[in-house]
Amino acid sequence: MARLPTTIWQRQNDFFKMKMGAPLKIAIAGLGTVGGGVVKALAARQTMLAAQAGRALQISAVSARDPNKQRDFAVGKFVADPVALASSDADVVVELIGGEEGVARQLVETSLQNGKHVVTANKALLAKHGKRLAEMAEAKCLQLKFEAAVAGGIPIVTTLREALIAHGVDAVKGILNGTCNYILTEMEVTGRGFADVLKEAQAKGYAEADPTLDIGGGDTAHKLAILASLAFGTAPDLANMKVEGIEHITATDIAFASEFGFRIKLLGVARQTYNKDGTSSGIDQRVHPAMVRARTPLANVDGAANGVVVDAAAAGHFFFSGRGAGEAPTASAVVSDIVEIARGSFGPVFGRPAASLKPLMPANPGATQSAYYLRFEVLDVPGVLAEIAGHLSKAGVSIESMIQRGRAPSESVFIVMITHDASQQAVEGALKAIAASDKVKARPCMIPMEAA
Amino acid sequence: MARLPTTIWQRQNDFFKMKMGAPLKIAIAGLGTVGGGVVKALAARQTMLAAQAGRALQISAVSARDPNKQRDFAVGKFVADPVALASSDADVVVELIGGEEGVARQLVETSLQNGKHVVTANKALLAKHGKRLAEMAEAKCLQLKFEAAVAGGIPIVTTLREALIAHGVDAVKGILNGTCNYILTEMEVTGRGFADVLKEAQAKGYAEADPTLDIGGGDTAHKLAILASLAFGTAPDLANMKVEGIEHITATDIAFASEFGFRIKLLGVARQTYNKDGTSSGIDQRVHPAMVRARTPLANVDGAANGVVVDAAAAGHFFFSGRGAGEAPTASAVVSDIVEIARGSFGPVFGRPAASLKPLMPANPGATQSAYYLRFEVLDVPGVLAEIAGHLSKAGVSIESMIQRGRAPSESVFIVMITHDASQQAVEGALKAIAASDKVKARPCMIPMEAA
Repeated sequence: MARLPTTIWQRQNDFFKMKMGAPLKIAIAGLGTVGGGVVKALAARQTMLAAQAGRALQISAVSARDPNKQRDFAVGKFVADPVALASSDADVVVELIGGEEGVARQLVETSLQNGKHVVTANKALLAKHGKRLAEMAEAKCLQLKFEAAVAGGIPIVTTLREALIAHGVDAVKGILNGTCNYILTEMEVTGRGFADVLKEAQAKGYAEADPTLDIGGGDTAHKLAILASLAFGTAPDLANMKVEGIEHITATDIAFASEFGFRIKLLGVARQTYNKDGTSSGIDQRVHPAMVRARTPLANVDGAANGVVVDAAAAGHFFFSGRGAGEAPTASAVVSDIVEIARGSFGPVFGRPAASLKPLMPANPGATQSAYYLRFEVLDVPGVLAEIAGHLSKAGVSIESMIQRGRAPSESVFIVMITHDASQQAVEGALKAIAASDKVKARPCMIPMEAA
Repeated sequence: MARLPTTIWQRQNDFFKMKMGAPLKIAIAGLGTVGGGVVKALAARQTMLAAQAGRALQISAVSARDPNKQRDFAVGKFVADPVALASSDADVVVELIGGEEGVARQLVETSLQNGKHVVTANKALLAKHGKRLAEMAEAKCLQLKFEAAVAGGIPIVTTLREALIAHGVDAVKGILNGTCNYILTEMEVTGRGFADVLKEAQAKGYAEADPTLDIGGGDTAHKLAILASLAFGTAPDLANMKVEGIEHITATDIAFASEFGFRIKLLGVARQTYNKDGTSSGIDQRVHPAMVRARTPLANVDGAANGVVVDAAAAGHFFFSGRGAGEAPTASAVVSDIVEIARGSFGPVFGRPAASLKPLMPANPGATQSAYYLRFEVLDVPGVLAEIAGHLSKAGVSIESMIQRGRAPSESVFIVMITHDASQQAVEGALKAIAASDKVKARPCMIPMEAA
C-alpha cells in the first residue's frame, strides 16, 4: 500500500471526518469586477466552500487603487501597497491587477519568493513570463494557478493540464475574446459596420475605452500562448505567433460569408504540424479572423461567450463553451483555484515540471494549407475576372466557388471566391499581383477557412 | 508560509526537479474496449505521462475473462481471479468489469479494504453504492476516482467536483448515452423507424445484443445520479428518479418535432427546485426523451457523441461535448485519473466528505412545469378536435400551437400540439380522458420540452 506520510495522512483523515483544518488566509490585490466577484462568492458560500476545501477560506487583506470607493461588499483589512501583501501573513496571494510588468509582476514574484501560493487571472504576465514564474513556484514547491486567465469560467486550463493528456493534443482552437465575438455577432445580426458597433460596445461597457488589446487580437494571443503551452509542453511563446485582429472585417464580408454557409470568428489556433514521416515539424500558432462553417460548435458561440475545441488525437474532438469574462464566471475560476490550494493539491504549473518545458519550434509557414475566402472590389470593365483568375492560377491557387455581384451602375463590383487548399504564401503572392492592377479598387480581403 | 511536511515537500521537490518517484503500480481488471485502450495509451505515451505524473506508470497485473484471446497489445502478468488483484502489490486497482454487484463490487470493496486506490468506469456501481464506497475510501485516505463513468472523455466529473463550485449549480442536463443519441440521430436523418435503426446499430456494434439498459434509459439514470451527487452534495440516488427510454419514439414524432423547430433527445436532467421564499424545495431528477430547440447546444450533439449543460447559477451556462464512449475517449478519462493518483492529489470522492453527503430530497412533482408536445392519432370524424381541446382545457392545459394533418382518406389523422407550461399531472390527467374516447386510435404521445 502507498501509505502517505503521517502528517498529510492525518490532515486528509481530519478532512474526511469533517474536522476543519486551519483557515486558508487569502490576500487579494485588485478589487475590480473579478476581485469583487471573488470576495462576494467567498462570503456568500463560505460554509459550502469550507466543506469542499476542508478548511475555512478567509480573506486576510486586500489592496485596491481606491480604498474609499463605494463597494457592494464588505472588505476587511486594507493595505495601500499591493506588493506589501506578499509580506503579509497570507497563505495565498490572488493577483487581479493585470499587466505583464510593473506591480502585477512584482507582486507575483515577491509572493513566490516569500513562500506564498499565487492565483492569478493575468494572461499577459503568464504569456510573457510563464516559464520563469513556474520555475520560481516549483523551486519552492508552491502552487501558481491561473484557471481564470483563459476563457473565464470554462475550466479549459485544468482540462488541458489534467484531463486530456492520455493521447496528446493535436490542436486547440478557440474563441477567447468576448469583446471581439460580441462585435462580430452584432455586426452579423444588425448588418452594421465595425466602427459603429465598436462605439456602441464601448458605451455598453462590453469594450474598453482603449480597445486595442481586444480587437487587435493581443488578448487572444496571450490566452492562446497559455493554452499552447499546456497542450504541447512548450514554454508560452508570443514571439512565434502571427496575430491579426478584427479591425478590417466589414459587414460585406460577414454577409458574403453567410451566403457561402460560414460565419466569421476571431480564432486563436495552435496546432501540432507533422513531417511526412509522422514526426513533429513544429507548432503552428496564430490569431486571426477565420471563416467557420455555420453548423459547427465554434460558429454557434454567440455574443460575449467563449468556446474552445480541443482535438485530442485518438480521443476525438471536445468542445467547451460558456461565459468567458465578467464577475461571476471569472470569480468562479479564481475560487476553484483557491479551493484546490486549500485542499493541498499539487502538481506542476503547466502540467510538466517547468524545467522540462521545451522552447516552441514554430511550424514552417508553408506547411499549413488552408482554403481561403477572397474578396475583390473591382471596376466593372471587361477582362477583370480573367486577370484575377489568371494571377491565382499562376500561383497555383484554384477556385472552388465564386459569386460576382454588381452594385448600382458605375459603382464597383464585388468578386468573392472560396479557394481550394493553398499555402498562405501562394495566396498572398497572387493577391499582391492582383492589388497592383488598376482595375482593382481596394485592398483585396483574404480570410482563411478553419475546420472547427 | 504554509510549508508542507518534509516528506511530501521532498517528493514535490524531486518531481519538479524531474527526479522520478517510485513507479506507480497499476492492476487492471477487464481488458475489453476500455481496458485495452488504457493498456495501449500507457504504453504509447509512457515517457510523456511519466513526466506529467512525476513517476513511471507501470502495469503490475491484469485480469480478463479470456487470458488466451488474441489482443493487439501486450499484457503483462495475468491473474485468473480479478478479485485477487486487490491483494496484489498494486498501488491502484482499475476496475473495468462493470455491473453494480458481483465481482466488480467485490473487487472495489476488497481493494479499498486492502489500502489500494481505485479507478473505475462503473456507473452502475457508483449510482447504487457510491456513498458507501466513498466512505470506505475516505476512511483509509484513499482515492476512488471515476471520470470515465460519465460521458467518456468529457471531464464533467472533475468539472463538477472542482471547477464550477463557487456559485453552486442550479441544473445539470445531458445527453449521456451514445447509443440512444445515435439511434435518434439515424431515425431523424433517414426517416426510418426505431426497431429498424436499433437492429442496424446492433449489427454495427453501436448497440449491445441486449440493449435494454441503454434504450430504456437505465444507463443514463446511473450517470445522472452521479452528476446530481457532485452538483448538489447529495448521495447518489436512483430511487427518486423518473426514468423513461426511447422505445416509444416514432419517426413521425421526430418529423413533427422538426416542423416545430425541435429535435428529440434522450436527456438526463437534475435540477434544484425552489420554494417561493428562495429556499430549496428539493432536487428534480429525471431521464426521458425531450424536445430541445433546434439551435441550442444539446440539440446539435449528433450521433454517438455526448453533451452536458451545467447551469452554474450566477456564473452562467456551460456546455461540454465530445465522444462519450469507445476505446480512446474512455481510456483518456481512466488515464487522467491514474495520473492524478500518481501525482498524489487528494480530495473527497464526491467533492465533499462522504459523511456529509445528504440524502436527496425529491422535488414535489407538481412543482415542475413544462411545455409539452402532444400527438394524437384520431379518426377523421367531426368533433374530435373539440373533444381533445375540451379535455385539455378542463385540466387547465392551454395550447400554444397546433398542426392537424390528414393522411389518405379513411386513414387516421394526426393532431399535434405544443402546450404552454403545465404540470405533468394536469397533462397526464387530460390524456387519460382523451385516450378513453372511441375517436382516438392509439395511445397519445407526450414529450416534455426542455430549455437547453
